[in-house]
Amino acid sequence: MPRSRPVMRPRMGKDSPMNLVVLAGGVGGGRFLLGVRAVAQAANTQVTAIVNTGDDVWLHGLRICPDLDSVLYTLGGGADPARGWGLRDETWTVLEELAAYQAEPSWFGLGDRDLAAHLVRTGLLARGLGLSDVTEFLCRRWRPGVRLLPASDDGIETHVVVAVEGRAGETRRLHFQEWWIRHGARLPALRFDYVGAEEAAPAPGVPEAIAAADVVLIAPSNPVVSIGPILAVPGIREALRRCPAPIIGISPIISGAPVRGMADRCLAALGVPCSAAGVGELLGARRNGGLLDGWLVDSADDPTTVRDVPVLARPLWMTDEAATQAIVVDALALAHG
Amino acid sequence: MPRSRPVMRPRMGKDSPMNLVVLAGGVGGGRFLLGVRAVAQAANTQVTAIVNTGDDVWLHGLRICPDLDSVLYTLGGGADPARGWGLRDETWTVLEELAAYQAEPSWFGLGDRDLAAHLVRTGLLARGLGLSDVTEFLCRRWRPGVRLLPASDDGIETHVVVAVEGRAGETRRLHFQEWWIRHGARLPALRFDYVGAEEAAPAPGVPEAIAAADVVLIAPSNPVVSIGPILAVPGIREALRRCPAPIIGISPIISGAPVRGMADRCLAALGVPCSAAGVGELLGARRNGGLLDGWLVDSADDPTTVRDVPVLARPLWMTDEAATQAIVVDALALAHG
Repeated sequence: MPRSRPVMRPRMGKDSPMNLVVLAGGVGGGRFLLGVRAVAQAANTQVTAIVNTGDDVWLHGLRICPDLDSVLYTLGGGADPARGWGLRDETWTVLEELAAYQAEPSWFGLGDRDLAAHLVRTGLLARGLGLSDVTEFLCRRWRPGVRLLPASDDGIETHVVVAVEGRAGETRRLHFQEWWIRHGARLPALRFDYVGAEEAAPAPGVPEAIAAADVVLIAPSNPVVSIGPILAVPGIREALRRCPAPIIGISPIISGAPVRGMADRCLAALGVPCSAAGVGELLGARRNGGLLDGWLVDSADDPTTVRDVPVLARPLWMTDEAATQAIVVDALALAHG
Repeated sequence: MPRSRPVMRPRMGKDSPMNLVVLAGGVGGGRFLLGVRAVAQAANTQVTAIVNTGDDVWLHGLRICPDLDSVLYTLGGGADPARGWGLRDETWTVLEELAAYQAEPSWFGLGDRDLAAHLVRTGLLARGLGLSDVTEFLCRRWRPGVRLLPASDDGIETHVVVAVEGRAGETRRLHFQEWWIRHGARLPALRFDYVGAEEAAPAPGVPEAIAAADVVLIAPSNPVVSIGPILAVPGIREALRRCPAPIIGISPIISGAPVRGMADRCLAALGVPCSAAGVGELLGARRNGGLLDGWLVDSADDPTTVRDVPVLARPLWMTDEAATQAIVVDALALAHG
């Protein structure tokens, strides 16, 4: 699909930087942003990543923001590629000691190096800083090369409602992290609640970034628990609805299976088919009150159609940074198609 | 000074356990308690240590209780004897990472293994438990062999008021830990404030332990910043005033110098001579509204007298546990002298 036009059209004249906004979750969002950053660096483009905070959790008195940290570590070159989460050269002394105290919860993998970020964050929050200020502080070390904003400075927590085994009709709720890590997403989810989202304000800079965007991309992150909590913030939904820039989504589902993670189990709770078409319909056409001006699916999902949304099929496996760059270029092409 | 009577006289008949209460600070308090525990184990005696909380501090969002931890680690066999504080086999990964973030404060030695105790404590406090409950939880691991109680569950913080250099008459205040560790107690102290102490209640069990004591010992801890904050809690002062048991102090000053630490710099702020007699007079005779029914000083301080207080001079260097046991036996002898 060769195109003769430039991939991005500057709004304010040839020399003005362009603005690219990406809604993203954690590890997958971080990998996608590696490609976005590379494309942007070559094209005088400023990138703002708006990162999910629904995974955030208090553990052992610390505020832990798994998605922000994953993006930070990945873009900062600190992520462990083998383990797939957390930091390289990690050690586990504190976790062993916590086990010696039989301290609960014990199911969260708290590495020594990783812990430092949580300590910095919790200390700064205790001094009255907002999560976006804290994130800026952490960025001074990791220099991610993109502007990282939490979706909100207000606490949002994704809770999962599950059935109580053996007691028909009874349900209980647990934090997403507990469902995801402790239970490996195996307890069938009845519902996801983005607790606090409806009352949350977008973090400072988020509505402005969306309003000033030339293109908005939705990373191929879990649509239910990574993108969902971002969209659940009314001020973000509203900013996206109003923004003049095209909004392009990249499917996190290829050939009926999640690119990574367990999105299938999350989609099942919503009754959404685990397919590129299913997620596309979930996000919906902007003209029908949904989000999308374009939907990028994998070549394997070629016949996929989403009502009132232009669909482009291209290779979507983020096998390396070059492949990811190609995906970003395709998404930008679709934005101006 | 041989005595034919038993060292401790049971109150309720021969087989009832005796109750020994010790007011103590951190590292020195812990070492003293090693001797107390050994004597008690041989004598059907229950020991309650009431530990200073004025050193407690929030750092990086964590509640750190240096004196309680020092006592816990020392009695639990985890303390590092070479370094003189903290845990054996300690590693410093988290501290190195905090430095990479240029996170402040950077002057507090936060070991990885030590950190686990702070995480457990902060997590439990966040769930609404009191510091005494938390301490009991930490004791399940370290099994100190004595009952450990914080002086208070209410936050008490010792602040140091110092002159602002180059600005005559101006003062500023800093947390005791910052003065002690960051500045090595070198900034001349004008005053120590036990912030929160006047409004603090004794921790649950503290007044009861004092009321039920057969003997109360004041460990050879820093009288200003270890014993001072305990006595600054009105309910503890009152309980000591009323208790029927003799109160015996052990001098933390030998031959005009502190056994350990920098008590001299603390005493100077109060205008108290750095001597066994000076500290004895500071604590004062119980019959004159002070605390002491007896004052144990080192043999080198033999001619020391304290107004209206019986003084016994015996070797006071805690060179090993046997020497410390002998000190405890001498203190108990003085109690019933």
